[in-house]
Amino acid sequence: MTSDLLGKFINALTVLPGIGKKSAQRMALYLLDKNKIGAREIASSLNDALNNIQRCKSCRMLTTNDLCHICEDERRDSQCICVVESPSDLLAIESTGGFEGKYFVLMGRLSPLDNLGPDDLGIPSLLEKIKKDSVKEIILALSSTVEGDATAIFIRDHVENIKVSRISYGIPIGGELEYVDSNTIARSIIERVEINDD
Amino acid sequence: MTSDLLGKFINALTVLPGIGKKSAQRMALYLLDKNKIGAREIASSLNDALNNIQRCKSCRMLTTNDLCHICEDERRDSQCICVVESPSDLLAIESTGGFEGKYFVLMGRLSPLDNLGPDDLGIPSLLEKIKKDSVKEIILALSSTVEGDATAIFIRDHVENIKVSRISYGIPIGGELEYVDSNTIARSIIERVEINDD
Repeated sequence: MTSDLLGKFINALTVLPGIGKKSAQRMALYLLDKNKIGAREIASSLNDALNNIQRCKSCRMLTTNDLCHICEDERRDSQCICVVESPSDLLAIESTGGFEGKYFVLMGRLSPLDNLGPDDLGIPSLLEKIKKDSVKEIILALSSTVEGDATAIFIRDHVENIKVSRISYGIPIGGELEYVDSNTIARSIIERVEINDD
Repeated sequence: MTSDLLGKFINALTVLPGIGKKSAQRMALYLLDKNKIGAREIASSLNDALNNIQRCKSCRMLTTNDLCHICEDERRDSQCICVVESPSDLLAIESTGGFEGKYFVLMGRLSPLDNLGPDDLGIPSLLEKIKKDSVKEIILALSSTVEGDATAIFIRDHVENIKVSRISYGIPIGGELEYVDSNTIARSIIERVEINDD
């Protein structure tokens, strides 16, 4: 129907998460018709990224160097490691500006059905890193799913003599109880925190 | 915060329609982390498209040749021209499979505020095409907005001795009256069609 190259580009775009045929067509026509400069910028920055971005040798985050800028930052506490599932989780935590330790990116979670075992998540190198840096605490910032919980338990069972914590579950800040699902409310009652006089 | 090349690619993606910072980040990490093959496919097909796609010399549709495949198709009726605002409108009409004439793509609509006049929409070449092909009917498939209506009236006033029609307005097929906006309902009553015995 469309010219072959246009159709090929539209099809290529449909691999993107959340992008179907119609959105892909809209994007392709926008780029080729209305914003060729933006299109060239996308093509060249994607090529640059593909050719230069690799995984940090220490924490498995995406980076252009051997070590990412967080692992290279000596002001950050390398004895406290936050374990996350994906680069986007790391970016989400970094955007809060409240965490001063370092990270380890699993790139997934334990999932026997998808053939993802401890080795695929780099857990051996996490354990090695814990020994080498004499890490004192690891914070598990994993999603609250069956696989996330399994991954957390697996890691907890494989480290010794260090503090293992996980991020808290509960009502989102600013959330109204009425709109929060019942599992979260139940959890927030179980994990209630005592209020002390200051 | 992120590695420079990654940040550059994320920023480049935000020019896409409907894509903000968060979706751009999700797409970029998906491509660079989970689907490098798909990413290379996007980069190369975008480059190919950018370097080869131009506008059809006859109807202004995007194409890789001088003439698009619809203009070159001799089985289609070149005496009936459907005028649309954009390549996506053309594709939408083509996808119905019900139109056998040819097209003319304005690439916009008359909009003095955006400095878009008749020359920018290629209306002189539309008028020339009408003469050259001795066109008998033009169908205006423009959007039902102030600018769309102005464009329709402008074109109607500049052609002579040929039938000028526009696509019908009314209730969408399968739509329930209850959910249709009142302007559309009012229009559908004004443009009511008599039901004849067959």
